Amino acid sequence: MERIEHHASFDGWQDVYQHESTTLGCTMKVGVYLPPQAQHGKVPVLYWLSGLTCTEQNFITKAAVQRYAAEHGIAVVAPDSSARGEGVADDPAYDLGQGAGFYVNATQEPWAANHRMYDYVVQELPALIEAHFPVTAERSISGHSMGGHGALVIALRNPGRYRSVSAFSPIVAPTQVPWGHKAFEAYLGSDREVWKQYDTVELIRTVQERLPLLVDQGLGDEFLESQLQPDLLRKACDETGHPLTLNLRPGYDHSYYFIASFIGEHMAHHASALKR
Amino acid sequence: MERIEHHASFDGWQDVYQHESTTLGCTMKVGVYLPPQAQHGKVPVLYWLSGLTCTEQNFITKAAVQRYAAEHGIAVVAPDSSARGEGVADDPAYDLGQGAGFYVNATQEPWAANHRMYDYVVQELPALIEAHFPVTAERSISGHSMGGHGALVIALRNPGRYRSVSAFSPIVAPTQVPWGHKAFEAYLGSDREVWKQYDTVELIRTVQERLPLLVDQGLGDEFLESQLQPDLLRKACDETGHPLTLNLRPGYDHSYYFIASFIGEHMAHHASALKR
Repeated sequence: MERIEHHASFDGWQDVYQHESTTLGCTMKVGVYLPPQAQHGKVPVLYWLSGLTCTEQNFITKAAVQRYAAEHGIAVVAPDSSARGEGVADDPAYDLGQGAGFYVNATQEPWAANHRMYDYVVQELPALIEAHFPVTAERSISGHSMGGHGALVIALRNPGRYRSVSAFSPIVAPTQVPWGHKAFEAYLGSDREVWKQYDTVELIRTVQERLPLLVDQGLGDEFLESQLQPDLLRKACDETGHPLTLNLRPGYDHSYYFIASFIGEHMAHHASALKR
Repeated sequence: MERIEHHASFDGWQDVYQHESTTLGCTMKVGVYLPPQAQHGKVPVLYWLSGLTCTEQNFITKAAVQRYAAEHGIAVVAPDSSARGEGVADDPAYDLGQGAGFYVNATQEPWAANHRMYDYVVQELPALIEAHFPVTAERSISGHSMGGHGALVIALRNPGRYRSVSAFSPIVAPTQVPWGHKAFEAYLGSDREVWKQYDTVELIRTVQERLPLLVDQGLGDEFLESQLQPDLLRKACDETGHPLTLNLRPGYDHSYYFIASFIGEHMAHHASALKR
């Protein structure tokens, strides 16, 4: 882990590290916020997964999370949203390849060599973080849009691994919307049964652990009807009795202004779970 | 005033407008945050002046000001940091021309036609804002680095026009540091007496109004010794009895992480003055 940025922030430190990822076969950058409490002992960790086109910079510069992380004593780890770099398979479109890993393990060429964000987020990244920083193994996870999808899928598929999960504007049913169709066809092939392991609405129907979901969705979101469809999540949770808090926010769009407005509520939710 | 961005933020609206500036002879972009209180009546305004290379975007996306503006019921107006566009005089360097107006009225060619940010901020911008938005004529002003210089100079030279002033990492003595030497020589010519009207440390020695100054400065700032030198401001205020709160913050650098960490304290300072 090589530190490449170091900024004082709310009495803690907003840093950026890079490391050679064995899972992804490339150099990865990761934002790490260490709250002031980390100077005196171990703190729990919130993992944040960003959306399409984002790097490790978007969340740490625009979401205003550090104030709440410092208040609650939570480290925040925000990796780049996909494998990236010269040798990594890419596509000219913004919604495929670099910046668009969709938090899956790709099985199809040319993606399979590098695009393995599922394993990176579940295994390699927390192992690294827990080895290099003053943090406990108490974890929460959240994210935005493609990253909200990633956070929900990863929490649901790994019972006991996360104390809490939340999402902003998540792609809850990628098997039913254009972004998911395009990415899953490319990364996973044409067998739609295989896609279901990365679809929140499908997973809700099979999981045993009833980890409560906190989801915020702006009603002014330009992708609401075409790509996000939170009603599919509500319906799946209603039918299975899965606990869901779905906050529909009039006027709010898909931007970081939306995330910044409600990240404080999400951090309070995670803090409450992490302190139990 | 044409609205080109519109985002819900903390129950208010973070917008961006553009307009043809008669003072600057170009199209100007301006960030305008209207807090929720503006839906029911007029609110006072904080003007924010950004630093070198910044556009109207930096402060509104990275400073996390909206939460505090909404709490206190203050509109926040953040213009681009200089005249800009194809017909506007520029220089390849980051610290001259577009993005580097230094909040002066240039008198030298080729700058004099467009680089008149002093008049724009003092006259044209507030007149526009007060004509088009539900705001009062109660004004405060703040800024960062070159914009901190601008805020201090403009407040000191216009007694009664601002209820309060503050600055982050301001260039307090441009007549004594390289950034100021280069810009003032280009914009104002070689007569150093002329420069003094745009130098906070010089102005402190002449002003009658004793508007208190709130200044935050990071001690890990990479420009501290070469360009900022807050001790010059402290000395001038000590010698003249001008009220100054100078917060020196160990570890903090010149970035927006510093601004975000203390913008809440500055907004409380301005709110207290605006509510009097």
